[in-house]
Amino acid sequence: MRTFVLCAHEAPLDAEIPLDDLPGHGRFDLLARSVTAAFLLSHDIRADVQLSLVLRDSLVIRLDGAELRHLHPDERSAAALLRAALEAKDGAIGAIEANPSPGVYVARRGLADILEETDGTLVQLHEDGEPATQTSPPADPIFVLSDHESFASEEMETLEKADARRVKIGPMRIHADHAIAIAHNWVDTAGYAQY
Amino acid sequence: MRTFVLCAHEAPLDAEIPLDDLPGHGRFDLLARSVTAAFLLSHDIRADVQLSLVLRDSLVIRLDGAELRHLHPDERSAAALLRAALEAKDGAIGAIEANPSPGVYVARRGLADILEETDGTLVQLHEDGEPATQTSPPADPIFVLSDHESFASEEMETLEKADARRVKIGPMRIHADHAIAIAHNWVDTAGYAQY
Repeated sequence: MRTFVLCAHEAPLDAEIPLDDLPGHGRFDLLARSVTAAFLLSHDIRADVQLSLVLRDSLVIRLDGAELRHLHPDERSAAALLRAALEAKDGAIGAIEANPSPGVYVARRGLADILEETDGTLVQLHEDGEPATQTSPPADPIFVLSDHESFASEEMETLEKADARRVKIGPMRIHADHAIAIAHNWVDTAGYAQY
Repeated sequence: MRTFVLCAHEAPLDAEIPLDDLPGHGRFDLLARSVTAAFLLSHDIRADVQLSLVLRDSLVIRLDGAELRHLHPDERSAAALLRAALEAKDGAIGAIEANPSPGVYVARRGLADILEETDGTLVQLHEDGEPATQTSPPADPIFVLSDHESFASEEMETLEKADARRVKIGPMRIHADHAIAIAHNWVDTAGYAQY
């Protein structure tokens, strides 16, 4: 299983998101593109992937590629899928997730909860990390990324406590969705070894 | 200079494109995301990049990173920029480009014209190509990609005549915008050598 965890610092927690203005609502456009980058192949979906969008460290939309349906490549329809998840958040009570559509779950959780509940090896994409070519992708990577803002100090602490491996995938600072595409490529090629 | 050339086989040639339905209009969503993948870094723009969108082998929207303004990361606003270029196409007469906004040019050209006019080494991303780790990126790569459809037979002939190098960037068939992100990463790292 390949897991991506994206910390979204300004994302709305309610569903009042006009699809014509995604950037103006907590950079919801970036969240939508991260979904398509995580799951979509050309004319196919990655079944062995899950993505958790951690909104303001208090609400998590989790998507599971094995069950996911109705995901199209465009940003607007991915955003609509996420917005429908927010509409269903009142069904998430305690640790119980709401499940508004196939493969889409919502829960009242934070980053620390998600990392605790997910099996695998934590990989933080980091500019001071080890170059991706000098290390092999772990068997079940959990890639943790931040949105257009840097990780908050509590998030950094959580990642340090969880002993995250720091890996550098390139010299440029890039958008989260492009980082997901490159992380996939690193794992797809078994660390640039198999083509 | 890094150049991307994307062949769009079903793209509209006029500006009748509602921004609420980009996928239904020749996969205009994919063209928009290819623009942002080609040019945008986190909080920055790649000045040394140009992208030519070859629409139905008859009209070319060329974007130049050194001059480009008003490009935002979301799909909708990139699509609006491209749509404005289509609105200005009547200003493109003969080989003369129209220039509706900074860094955006429109011309009545096809793939063969563009390849002839662009300096650099042609690289076709191809599943039978040489693995990217076994070859170095050329100094001035011209990456040629196709949209959601395969290259047409005339395009294949043009690429063969132009002696394009075939490079494989990974084992999966992925979307063009993600391929652009990975191609950038290959060049950014000087062929996975510099991080």
